[in-house]
Amino acid sequence: MRGMNMSTSQPGTEIGFTWPIRVYYEDTDAGGIVFYANYLKFFERARTEWLRACGVDQNRLADEADAIFIVRSTAVDYRAPARLDDVVKVVSRIERLGRASVDFAQEAWRDGTLLATGSIRVGCVDRIALRPAAIPPPVLAALRRGPNVNDRGLSTDND
Amino acid sequence: MRGMNMSTSQPGTEIGFTWPIRVYYEDTDAGGIVFYANYLKFFERARTEWLRACGVDQNRLADEADAIFIVRSTAVDYRAPARLDDVVKVVSRIERLGRASVDFAQEAWRDGTLLATGSIRVGCVDRIALRPAAIPPPVLAALRRGPNVNDRGLSTDND
Amino acid sequence: MRGMNMSTSQPGTEIGFTWPIRVYYEDTDAGGIVFYANYLKFFERARTEWLRACGVDQNRLADEADAIFIVRSTAVDYRAPARLDDVVKVVSRIERLGRASVDFAQEAWRDGTLLATGSIRVGCVDRIALRPAAIPPPVLAALRRGPNVNDRGLSTDND
Amino acid sequence: MRGMNMSTSQPGTEIGFTWPIRVYYEDTDAGGIVFYANYLKFFERARTEWLRACGVDQNRLADEADAIFIVRSTAVDYRAPARLDDVVKVVSRIERLGRASVDFAQEAWRDGTLLATGSIRVGCVDRIALRPAAIPPPVLAALRRGPNVNDRGLSTDND
Repeated sequence: MRGMNMSTSQPGTEIGFTWPIRVYYEDTDAGGIVFYANYLKFFERARTEWLRACGVDQNRLADEADAIFIVRSTAVDYRAPARLDDVVKVVSRIERLGRASVDFAQEAWRDGTLLATGSIRVGCVDRIALRPAAIPPPVLAALRRGPNVNDRGLSTDND
Repeated sequence: MRGMNMSTSQPGTEIGFTWPIRVYYEDTDAGGIVFYANYLKFFERARTEWLRACGVDQNRLADEADAIFIVRSTAVDYRAPARLDDVVKVVSRIERLGRASVDFAQEAWRDGTLLATGSIRVGCVDRIALRPAAIPPPVLAALRRGPNVNDRGLSTDND
Repeated sequence: MRGMNMSTSQPGTEIGFTWPIRVYYEDTDAGGIVFYANYLKFFERARTEWLRACGVDQNRLADEADAIFIVRSTAVDYRAPARLDDVVKVVSRIERLGRASVDFAQEAWRDGTLLATGSIRVGCVDRIALRPAAIPPPVLAALRRGPNVNDRGLSTDND
Repeated sequence: MRGMNMSTSQPGTEIGFTWPIRVYYEDTDAGGIVFYANYLKFFERARTEWLRACGVDQNRLADEADAIFIVRSTAVDYRAPARLDDVVKVVSRIERLGRASVDFAQEAWRDGTLLATGSIRVGCVDRIALRPAAIPPPVLAALRRGPNVNDRGLSTDND
């Protein structure tokens, strides 16, 4: 549905998974810019699509392995404002892949301007008790492989 | 700031249950005003506090009667904009109390200015299948009695 | 960036402009379904893309004609719940095109299931006083022409 | 429910400014808990009320000094989930008060359970260019004095 690509062209970033997001009124605040808390939403959309591109379906993960990913911590630096109608591109990559948690490094860009950077720690928990749990081996393998650039599923791209 | 009272002093309104809501950045958009969709949140906060003042605990309702209230339809007219830091007062009253649904008439005011009016239909459903269900008799009785002006619980004041 | 098409295949709908939206955690609530107020966001995203496909740029409209569109009223019926990871398709069409306002009829679908219908009245106002204003003639002409199916801009589609 | 007090009774916290927040459906997600990004909203509501209790009116600040506070960075650790209908109390204190920025340390509690901790850096900027600006001296003085426990304004009680 949305464009996904393995971009090397993003200025200042390494190879990563890029997810474009359009800014609507709902995302802005009375300062005329994107409300800072909403970058956490943008980052999550990009991580979700990253997981999907890795072949990890979070609903199936919950049903079959009783495991869900939850956010343990977030740290975001705001560099420049985004505005209504901007296309914000979120670049995501794994910084650390642990037994029961994953650290993502994420960046939000508008063309050549870095808008925000985020460090998001996501933990695997069993979905009943919400206690830490090992990431199921097939999921761990999929995360190690990374997004499959040839299987873009719903996605196409021409941005 | 918060609190509950049976106000007759609100211009243009009948007796109703009033719930004050402060406008923060999160509520506004790039137009500099409260984002229109957020009035549905304001109205829901006011209905929830109305129910609480009637002695209806929605969590207990779900646990004990396997019944939950869901929103069936919403209709909102926007009359005047609210801005950052405004105190919006939502006046709520029941317009129709059916066997399995309740129609609320709600108004949002800032001092003497009517900001928005809403008609919200809430239906009772069993919480597994989400099928329409009769409102449990004790809840129906509580809704008929209305908010208890003498038992203001948590809602009155600085705790 | 996202898929746009003039769909006739949507069950139960006339020809309209279809905009697909993925459901993320941010869109859901503790009932496990999409929070009803968020359909107003989905509908707005679809209207915005409809305007963009008509060649109407809301930022330019504000800058050049000092005119902005604001939402005057919303009415939404909720038919069936949407859940995490669903792809919701919003079909939009103009029901009435007035001198200073536009009535949109919108529907949210998941495959063959109608999730919600909305009637949204959008008014044109001058952006300083927020007073009703005639829709600028070139915009009116663009709205009459409708979305240009051959000029899909950022959008591509294969869903 | 609402109110402000200088609490020393909050377990594990120093003297700080406490702001209570009720959890509504809008705050939760399909995991059945408060959506993590919403703690940034809760923290901002508490900071805003902290500023108000210090006698700092952000609207007047913008109009008179052309200065606004913007969020520069956020770091949040999530410790335990909050659920529908919980009353979350946010304790806020200044960790560092600079010439052009303020670091807040904030905690969200439900009774004796620590839910989340946040470090939020807020910067003062001129409101046109959004460039860093010195905090106006009267505001700096007010922040140094801290919240006035005797002047609880709107925030104490049912109005």
